[in-house]
Amino acid sequence: MPHIHLPENLPGIRGLMAFRPDTAQPLNELAEILLRGENTLTRGERELIATYVSHLNDCFFCQNAHGGIAQHYLQCDLSYLDALKADPEAMPISDKLKALLAIAASVQRGGKYVTPAQIDRARNLGATDLEIHDTVMIAAFFCFCNRYVDGLGTEAPANRQFYIDRGPMRAEEGYAHFDLRK
Amino acid sequence: MPHIHLPENLPGIRGLMAFRPDTAQPLNELAEILLRGENTLTRGERELIATYVSHLNDCFFCQNAHGGIAQHYLQCDLSYLDALKADPEAMPISDKLKALLAIAASVQRGGKYVTPAQIDRARNLGATDLEIHDTVMIAAFFCFCNRYVDGLGTEAPANRQFYIDRGPMRAEEGYAHFDLRK
Repeated sequence: MPHIHLPENLPGIRGLMAFRPDTAQPLNELAEILLRGENTLTRGERELIATYVSHLNDCFFCQNAHGGIAQHYLQCDLSYLDALKADPEAMPISDKLKALLAIAASVQRGGKYVTPAQIDRARNLGATDLEIHDTVMIAAFFCFCNRYVDGLGTEAPANRQFYIDRGPMRAEEGYAHFDLRK
Repeated sequence: MPHIHLPENLPGIRGLMAFRPDTAQPLNELAEILLRGENTLTRGERELIATYVSHLNDCFFCQNAHGGIAQHYLQCDLSYLDALKADPEAMPISDKLKALLAIAASVQRGGKYVTPAQIDRARNLGATDLEIHDTVMIAAFFCFCNRYVDGLGTEAPANRQFYIDRGPMRAEEGYAHFDLRK
Protein backbone atom coordinates (compact mmCIF):
# COMPACT_ATOMS: atom_id res chain seq x y z
CA MET A 1 0.00 0.00 0.00
CA PRO A 2 1.37 3.45 -0.86
CA HIS A 3 2.47 5.63 2.07
CA ILE A 4 0.06 8.41 1.00
CA HIS A 5 -3.37 8.40 -0.62
CA LEU A 6 -2.86 8.26 -4.36
CA PRO A 7 -5.28 8.02 -7.29
CA GLU A 8 -5.96 4.34 -7.94
CA ASN A 9 -4.92 2.25 -10.92
CA LEU A 10 -1.96 4.45 -11.78
CA PRO A 11 1.17 2.38 -11.12
CA GLY A 12 4.57 3.67 -10.02
CA ILE A 13 5.39 7.28 -10.76
CA ARG A 14 2.08 7.80 -12.61
CA GLY A 15 0.05 7.98 -9.41
CA LEU A 16 2.52 10.51 -8.03
CA MET A 17 2.23 12.60 -11.19
CA ALA A 18 -1.55 12.65 -10.84
CA PHE A 19 -1.19 13.56 -7.14
CA ARG A 20 1.14 16.52 -7.82
CA PRO A 21 0.78 17.60 -11.48
CA ASP A 22 2.76 20.81 -11.05
CA THR A 23 5.95 18.97 -10.08
CA ALA A 24 5.22 16.29 -12.71
CA GLN A 25 5.48 18.81 -15.54
CA PRO A 26 9.14 19.89 -15.20
CA LEU A 27 10.08 16.34 -14.22
CA ASN A 28 8.62 15.04 -17.47
CA GLU A 29 10.18 17.86 -19.49
CA LEU A 30 13.56 16.89 -18.11
CA ALA A 31 12.93 13.21 -18.94
CA GLU A 32 11.94 14.19 -22.47
CA ILE A 33 15.15 16.15 -23.11
CA LEU A 34 17.41 13.61 -21.44
CA LEU A 35 15.91 10.44 -22.88
CA ARG A 36 14.36 11.50 -26.17
CA GLY A 37 15.98 14.82 -27.19
CA GLU A 38 18.47 15.04 -30.05
CA ASN A 39 21.62 13.31 -28.92
CA THR A 40 24.60 11.32 -30.21
CA LEU A 41 23.59 8.64 -27.69
CA THR A 42 20.68 6.68 -29.16
CA ARG A 43 17.35 6.59 -27.35
CA GLY A 44 17.97 2.90 -26.76
CA GLU A 45 21.34 3.58 -25.12
CA ARG A 46 19.82 6.24 -22.87
CA GLU A 47 16.89 4.03 -21.84
CA LEU A 48 19.46 1.33 -21.09
CA ILE A 49 21.34 3.67 -18.72
CA ALA A 50 17.99 4.47 -17.04
CA THR A 51 17.09 0.78 -16.79
CA TYR A 52 20.51 -0.24 -15.48
CA VAL A 53 20.57 2.40 -12.73
CA SER A 54 16.97 1.54 -11.75
CA HIS A 55 18.05 -2.10 -11.52
CA LEU A 56 21.00 -1.15 -9.29
CA ASN A 57 18.57 0.81 -7.10
CA ASP A 58 16.26 -2.24 -7.08
CA CYS A 59 13.29 -0.17 -8.27
CA PHE A 60 10.91 -2.68 -9.83
CA PHE A 61 8.62 -0.18 -11.53
CA CYS A 62 11.32 1.99 -13.14
CA GLN A 63 13.57 -0.84 -14.27
CA ASN A 64 10.65 -2.59 -15.96
CA ALA A 65 8.90 0.50 -17.35
CA HIS A 66 12.14 1.78 -18.90
CA GLY A 67 13.29 -1.76 -19.63
CA GLY A 68 10.19 -2.24 -21.77
CA ILE A 69 11.07 0.90 -23.73
CA ALA A 70 14.73 -0.14 -24.03
CA GLN A 71 13.66 -3.56 -25.34
CA HIS A 72 11.56 -1.85 -27.96
CA TYR A 73 14.39 0.39 -29.14
CA LEU A 74 17.07 -2.31 -28.97
CA GLN A 75 14.77 -5.03 -30.35
CA CYS A 76 15.97 -7.48 -27.73
CA ASP A 77 14.19 -9.90 -25.39
CA LEU A 78 13.90 -9.85 -21.62
CA SER A 79 16.60 -12.46 -21.02
CA TYR A 80 19.09 -10.34 -23.00
CA LEU A 81 18.15 -7.26 -20.98
CA ASP A 82 18.43 -9.14 -17.69
CA ALA A 83 21.87 -10.45 -18.66
CA LEU A 84 22.93 -6.93 -19.60
CA LYS A 85 21.76 -5.51 -16.27
CA ALA A 86 23.65 -8.27 -14.42
CA ASP A 87 26.96 -7.80 -16.25
CA PRO A 88 27.19 -5.17 -19.00
CA GLU A 89 30.90 -5.85 -19.57
CA ALA A 90 30.14 -9.42 -20.68
CA MET A 91 27.63 -8.37 -23.34
CA PRO A 92 27.99 -7.67 -27.07
CA ILE A 93 27.49 -3.90 -26.76
CA SER A 94 29.98 -1.21 -27.80
CA ASP A 95 33.01 -0.61 -25.61
CA LYS A 96 31.96 3.03 -25.31
CA LEU A 97 28.56 2.05 -23.93
CA LYS A 98 30.24 -0.31 -21.46
CA ALA A 99 32.42 2.58 -20.26
CA LEU A 100 29.38 4.86 -19.89
CA LEU A 101 27.43 2.19 -17.99
CA ALA A 102 30.39 1.82 -15.61
CA ILE A 103 30.21 5.58 -14.94
CA ALA A 104 26.44 5.28 -14.39
CA ALA A 105 27.02 2.49 -11.86
CA SER A 106 29.40 4.73 -9.92
CA VAL A 107 26.90 7.60 -9.94
CA GLN A 108 24.31 5.21 -8.51
CA ARG A 109 26.59 4.61 -5.50
CA GLY A 110 27.31 8.33 -5.15
CA GLY A 111 28.81 11.14 -7.25
CA LYS A 112 32.25 10.82 -5.72
CA TYR A 113 32.58 7.20 -6.86
CA VAL A 114 33.12 8.34 -10.45
CA THR A 115 36.88 8.09 -11.05
CA PRO A 116 39.16 9.95 -13.50
CA ALA A 117 40.12 6.50 -14.83
CA GLN A 118 36.47 5.79 -15.71
CA ILE A 119 36.22 9.14 -17.47
CA ASP A 120 39.51 8.52 -19.35
CA ARG A 121 38.30 5.11 -20.45
CA ALA A 122 35.06 6.55 -21.85
CA ARG A 123 36.88 9.42 -23.52
CA ASN A 124 39.48 7.12 -25.10
CA LEU A 125 36.62 5.09 -26.56
CA GLY A 126 35.19 8.19 -28.20
CA ALA A 127 32.75 9.56 -25.60
CA THR A 128 32.28 13.32 -25.84
CA ASP A 129 31.90 15.73 -22.93
CA LEU A 130 28.19 15.93 -23.65
CA GLU A 131 27.82 12.14 -23.67
CA ILE A 132 29.65 11.88 -20.35
CA HIS A 133 27.54 14.72 -18.95
CA ASP A 134 24.29 13.14 -20.09
CA THR A 135 25.28 9.72 -18.77
CA VAL A 136 25.94 11.19 -15.32
CA MET A 137 22.77 13.28 -15.45
CA ILE A 138 20.55 10.39 -16.56
CA ALA A 139 22.04 8.13 -13.87
CA ALA A 140 21.55 10.81 -11.20
CA PHE A 141 18.04 11.57 -12.44
CA PHE A 142 17.04 7.94 -12.01
CA CYS A 143 18.47 7.91 -8.49
CA PHE A 144 15.81 10.61 -7.97
CA CYS A 145 12.97 8.82 -9.76
CA ASN A 146 13.70 5.46 -8.11
CA ARG A 147 13.69 7.03 -4.63
CA TYR A 148 10.55 9.01 -5.43
CA VAL A 149 8.69 5.90 -6.60
CA ASP A 150 9.83 3.58 -3.80
CA GLY A 151 10.08 6.21 -1.05
CA LEU A 152 6.32 6.72 -1.26
CA GLY A 153 5.62 2.98 -1.46
CA THR A 154 3.87 3.10 -4.84
CA GLU A 155 2.49 -0.09 -6.30
CA ALA A 156 3.25 -1.66 -9.65
CA PRO A 157 1.98 -4.63 -11.69
CA ALA A 158 4.13 -7.68 -10.87
CA ASN A 159 3.85 -9.22 -14.34
CA ARG A 160 6.87 -8.04 -16.29
CA GLN A 161 5.09 -8.68 -19.59
CA PHE A 162 2.82 -5.72 -18.71
CA TYR A 163 5.75 -3.32 -19.24
CA ILE A 164 7.09 -5.06 -22.32
CA ASP A 165 3.67 -4.84 -23.96
CA ARG A 166 3.55 -1.10 -23.26
CA GLY A 167 7.14 -0.38 -24.35
CA PRO A 168 6.33 0.57 -27.97
CA MET A 169 3.48 2.91 -26.91
CA ARG A 170 5.62 4.52 -24.22
CA ALA A 171 8.47 5.00 -26.69
CA GLU A 172 6.04 6.60 -29.15
CA GLU A 173 4.22 8.93 -26.75
CA GLY A 174 7.33 10.28 -25.03
CA TYR A 175 7.44 11.98 -21.65
CA ALA A 176 6.41 15.59 -22.14
CA HIS A 177 2.75 15.13 -22.97
CA PHE A 178 0.87 11.95 -22.30
CA ASP A 179 -2.38 10.67 -20.94
CA LEU A 180 -1.67 9.34 -17.43
CA ARG A 181 -4.57 6.92 -17.67
CA LYS A 182 -3.32 5.04 -20.73
CA MET B 1 39.31 19.54 -11.86
CA PRO B 2 35.89 18.82 -13.36
CA HIS B 3 35.57 15.62 -15.42
CA ILE B 4 34.38 17.61 -18.45
CA HIS B 5 35.21 21.08 -19.78
CA LEU B 6 32.91 23.53 -18.05
CA PRO B 7 32.65 27.34 -18.18
CA GLU B 8 35.04 28.77 -15.59
CA ASN B 9 34.20 30.60 -12.38
CA LEU B 10 30.78 28.99 -12.05
CA PRO B 11 30.92 26.74 -8.99
CA GLY B 12 28.98 23.51 -8.42
CA ILE B 13 25.79 23.04 -10.38
CA ARG B 14 26.07 26.51 -11.95
CA GLY B 15 28.79 25.43 -14.38
CA LEU B 16 26.65 22.44 -15.37
CA MET B 17 23.67 24.71 -15.95
CA ALA B 18 25.73 26.91 -18.25
CA PHE B 19 27.06 23.79 -20.06
CA ARG B 20 23.55 22.39 -20.70
CA PRO B 21 20.97 25.21 -20.39
CA ASP B 22 18.11 23.14 -21.81
CA THR B 23 18.26 20.58 -19.01
CA ALA B 24 18.88 23.38 -16.48
CA GLN B 25 15.54 24.98 -17.19
CA PRO B 26 13.15 22.17 -16.06
CA LEU B 27 15.54 21.30 -13.23
CA ASN B 28 15.30 24.86 -11.92
CA GLU B 29 11.54 24.97 -12.42
CA LEU B 30 11.24 21.86 -10.29
CA ALA B 31 13.49 23.39 -7.61
CA GLU B 32 11.38 26.54 -7.63
CA ILE B 33 8.11 24.66 -7.05
CA LEU B 34 9.56 22.27 -4.48
CA LEU B 35 11.59 24.75 -2.44
CA ARG B 36 9.83 28.08 -2.94
CA GLY B 37 6.27 27.35 -4.13
CA GLU B 38 3.26 27.80 -1.86
CA ASN B 39 3.42 25.12 0.79
CA THR B 40 2.48 24.40 4.40
CA LEU B 41 6.16 23.56 4.93
CA THR B 42 8.10 26.81 5.28
CA ARG B 43 10.86 27.65 2.83
CA GLY B 44 13.29 27.31 5.71
CA GLU B 45 12.06 23.79 6.51
CA ARG B 46 12.36 22.76 2.86
CA GLU B 47 15.87 24.19 2.50
CA LEU B 48 16.74 22.32 5.68
CA ILE B 49 15.61 19.01 4.15
CA ALA B 50 17.73 19.84 1.06
CA THR B 51 20.74 20.75 3.21
CA TYR B 52 20.41 17.68 5.42
CA VAL B 53 20.21 15.23 2.50
CA SER B 54 23.13 16.97 0.77
CA HIS B 55 25.10 16.59 4.00
CA LEU B 56 24.25 12.87 4.16
CA ASN B 57 25.43 12.57 0.54
CA ASP B 58 28.59 14.48 1.51
CA CYS B 59 28.06 17.02 -1.28
CA PHE B 60 30.04 20.07 -0.19
CA PHE B 61 28.61 22.50 -2.73
CA CYS B 62 24.91 21.65 -2.25
CA GLN B 63 24.98 21.40 1.53
CA ASN B 64 26.65 24.80 1.81
CA ALA B 65 24.74 26.57 -0.97
CA HIS B 66 21.39 25.43 0.46
CA GLY B 67 22.71 25.69 4.01
CA GLY B 68 23.39 29.39 3.37
CA ILE B 69 19.79 29.84 2.23
CA ALA B 70 18.45 27.81 5.17
CA GLN B 71 20.48 29.94 7.60
CA HIS B 72 18.95 33.06 6.08
CA TYR B 73 15.39 31.76 6.43
CA LEU B 74 15.90 30.25 9.88
CA GLN B 75 18.06 33.15 11.10
CA CYS B 76 20.54 30.75 12.66
CA ASP B 77 24.32 30.49 12.62
CA LEU B 78 26.57 27.86 11.08
CA SER B 79 27.26 26.00 14.32
CA TYR B 80 23.50 25.56 14.85
CA LEU B 81 23.09 24.26 11.31
CA ASP B 82 26.04 21.88 11.67
CA ALA B 83 24.61 20.52 14.93
CA LEU B 84 21.24 20.06 13.24
CA LYS B 85 22.78 18.13 10.33
CA ALA B 86 24.66 15.92 12.77
CA ASP B 87 21.66 15.05 14.95
CA PRO B 88 18.27 16.59 14.12
CA GLU B 89 16.52 14.68 16.91
CA ALA B 90 18.61 16.49 19.55
CA MET B 91 17.70 19.97 18.30
CA PRO B 92 14.96 22.41 19.33
CA ILE B 93 12.93 21.99 16.14
CA SER B 94 9.34 20.78 15.90
CA ASP B 95 8.65 17.07 16.36
CA LYS B 96 6.96 17.04 12.97
CA LEU B 97 10.09 18.38 11.27
CA LYS B 98 12.17 15.77 13.09
CA ALA B 99 9.86 13.07 11.74
CA LEU B 100 10.12 14.47 8.20
CA LEU B 101 13.91 14.68 8.41
CA ALA B 102 13.98 11.02 9.49
CA ILE B 103 12.00 10.14 6.35
CA ALA B 104 14.41 12.23 4.26
CA ALA B 105 17.37 10.35 5.74
CA SER B 106 15.79 7.04 4.73
CA VAL B 107 15.18 8.31 1.19
CA GLN B 108 18.85 9.26 0.99
CA ARG B 109 19.79 5.61 1.63
CA GLY B 110 17.18 4.38 -0.84
CA GLY B 111 13.41 4.59 -1.34
CA LYS B 112 12.76 1.23 0.30
CA TYR B 113 14.31 2.36 3.58
CA VAL B 114 11.27 4.51 4.33
CA THR B 115 9.18 2.54 6.83
CA PRO B 116 5.45 2.62 7.62
CA ALA B 117 6.46 3.46 11.22
CA GLN B 118 8.28 6.58 10.01
CA ILE B 119 5.23 7.61 8.01
CA ASP B 120 2.90 6.94 10.98
CA ARG B 121 5.11 9.02 13.25
CA ALA B 122 5.03 11.97 10.85
CA ARG B 123 1.27 11.63 10.35
CA ASN B 124 0.60 11.42 14.09
CA LEU B 125 2.55 14.67 14.51
CA GLY B 126 0.33 16.39 11.98
CA ALA B 127 2.13 15.86 8.67
CA THR B 128 -0.23 15.85 5.67
CA ASP B 129 0.03 13.60 2.62
CA LEU B 130 1.36 16.54 0.64
CA GLU B 131 4.01 17.32 3.25
CA ILE B 132 5.12 13.68 3.29
CA HIS B 133 5.11 13.64 -0.52
CA ASP B 134 7.16 16.82 -0.76
CA THR B 135 9.64 15.65 1.87
CA VAL B 136 10.28 12.46 -0.10
CA MET B 137 10.45 14.35 -3.39
CA ILE B 138 12.84 17.01 -2.09
CA ALA B 139 15.08 14.35 -0.53
CA ALA B 140 15.06 12.31 -3.76
CA PHE B 141 15.64 15.43 -5.86
CA PHE B 142 18.77 16.26 -3.87
CA CYS B 143 20.05 12.71 -4.31
CA PHE B 144 19.92 13.67 -7.99
CA CYS B 145 21.51 17.13 -7.62
CA ASN B 146 24.27 15.87 -5.31
CA ARG B 147 25.22 13.07 -7.73
CA TYR B 148 25.06 15.45 -10.69
CA VAL B 149 27.37 17.96 -9.01
CA ASP B 150 29.89 15.46 -7.63
CA GLY B 151 29.60 12.88 -10.44
CA LEU B 152 31.04 15.44 -12.86
CA GLY B 153 33.70 16.56 -10.38
CA THR B 154 32.62 20.19 -10.25
CA GLU B 155 34.59 22.62 -8.13
CA ALA B 156 33.33 24.82 -5.33
CA PRO B 157 34.78 27.56 -3.09
CA ALA B 158 36.17 25.96 0.08
CA ASN B 159 35.34 28.93 2.33
CA ARG B 160 31.94 28.26 3.85
CA GLN B 161 31.41 31.96 4.52
CA PHE B 162 31.10 32.40 0.72
CA TYR B 163 27.77 30.55 0.79
CA ILE B 164 26.50 32.20 3.95
CA ASP B 165 27.15 35.64 2.45
CA ARG B 166 25.17 34.69 -0.65
CA GLY B 167 22.26 33.05 1.19
CA PRO B 168 20.02 36.14 1.36
CA MET B 169 20.51 36.91 -2.38
CA ARG B 170 19.92 33.28 -3.34
CA ALA B 171 16.75 33.21 -1.22
CA GLU B 172 15.56 36.39 -2.90
CA GLU B 173 16.32 35.48 -6.51
CA GLY B 174 14.83 31.99 -6.39
CA TYR B 175 15.55 29.15 -8.81
CA ALA B 176 13.45 29.72 -11.90
CA HIS B 177 15.12 32.80 -13.33
CA PHE B 178 18.53 33.97 -12.23
CA ASP B 179 21.77 35.23 -13.62
CA LEU B 180 24.26 32.34 -13.50
CA ARG B 181 27.18 34.75 -13.24
CA LYS B 182 26.04 36.49 -10.03
